[in-house]
Amino acid sequence: MPEAPLAVVLLSGGLDSTTVAAIARADGFRLLALTIDYNQRHRVELDHAAKVAAYFGVERHVVLPLDLRGFGGSALTADIDVPKGGVEPGIPVTYVPARNTIFLSVALGWAEAAGARDIFIGVNALDYSGYPDCRPAFIRSFEAMANTATKAGVEGGQFRVHTPLAEMTKADIVRAAAEFGAPLELTWSCYDPTPEGRVCGVCDSCRLRAKGFAEAGVLDPAL
Amino acid sequence: MPEAPLAVVLLSGGLDSTTVAAIARADGFRLLALTIDYNQRHRVELDHAAKVAAYFGVERHVVLPLDLRGFGGSALTADIDVPKGGVEPGIPVTYVPARNTIFLSVALGWAEAAGARDIFIGVNALDYSGYPDCRPAFIRSFEAMANTATKAGVEGGQFRVHTPLAEMTKADIVRAAAEFGAPLELTWSCYDPTPEGRVCGVCDSCRLRAKGFAEAGVLDPAL
Repeated sequence: MPEAPLAVVLLSGGLDSTTVAAIARADGFRLLALTIDYNQRHRVELDHAAKVAAYFGVERHVVLPLDLRGFGGSALTADIDVPKGGVEPGIPVTYVPARNTIFLSVALGWAEAAGARDIFIGVNALDYSGYPDCRPAFIRSFEAMANTATKAGVEGGQFRVHTPLAEMTKADIVRAAAEFGAPLELTWSCYDPTPEGRVCGVCDSCRLRAKGFAEAGVLDPAL
Repeated sequence: MPEAPLAVVLLSGGLDSTTVAAIARADGFRLLALTIDYNQRHRVELDHAAKVAAYFGVERHVVLPLDLRGFGGSALTADIDVPKGGVEPGIPVTYVPARNTIFLSVALGWAEAAGARDIFIGVNALDYSGYPDCRPAFIRSFEAMANTATKAGVEGGQFRVHTPLAEMTKADIVRAAAEFGAPLELTWSCYDPTPEGRVCGVCDSCRLRAKGFAEAGVLDPAL
């Protein structure tokens, strides 16, 4: 039997990327887990990413330091308050300029070096209401670019960016996590943990997560 | 008089990127210089980048650590010998998987955060014979992606990736450097410096540089 193909999974340690990793594994891939340490305000998610990677027995987990704070421009990386008043329409201040472009580019570099042609990322419908780099048009555009950018692409290999959550609500994601065996008890979503290291419960990410579990009729095992 | 627009210039400290910075300045831009410290074998180029940035009086110079060695796959970042036998056809082992994609993505993030819409990169004709991510098709594809990826792009701003050296030979670049006042005496090109910190003279980069100066009929001020 030929060895299963490798895929690079962008793993933040949150609900979405952990569910994506479970789906990639169910699709028959061996996993390379890539976590970006961009000095995010919610650094605790890095520990959760390591636990999730260990749970899945990935071939390799790379935590790549990539400090985007020097550029500013986002509440997740600069001294701008994380909003707590509820999810607003439009592009939120937690948008990090070109974040998914940067993350996918790094994933592409690792994929090419490792001989993988598949990249998984947990962008979804709720996100792309606000973040331009979560929209399907962006993902298709990135794939086209990747196939002109790389030795593997030029030589005929096709890179694919998989976004299995693209059309899902948070409730759908919670249900998919159960279906594919994602260890949600190990995940972290909060953008702005308390000094005691607990979830704040009121940032956009906490609100979306709570709503997803409520609508799926599932208790959040991480609480 | 309105303030001149900002541009992000990818500045390695070599002949090409230094010439590009001189051209960007001549085009009327205020410069943001971005140097990526990817733990390259030829780390001495970082010091040269700092000298060049100071020479041009850039608005800001960011040296971003981004360690790609963990991914392997290139003679510039892994324990593969740098070729010394002359420039060969095809994609060389000094190709770093997705390097320009990663560098341009980071430049895009800074550009968006800083309100810049222009990015300058020193890819050129000699390079794109071997490196897929130096070809014009790649650059156009990256621009298209950038305009779907970003808040600024979605809101109607157009990012431009300038490659003023795209059609130049090394000799043309040496002549352009003189024309636009690039301080070539501060630049570094060698991929594999000697233990004493001198250029090796026989790697592809040294050979191309020497050929360029010879064909332009100019003495290399860095030697």
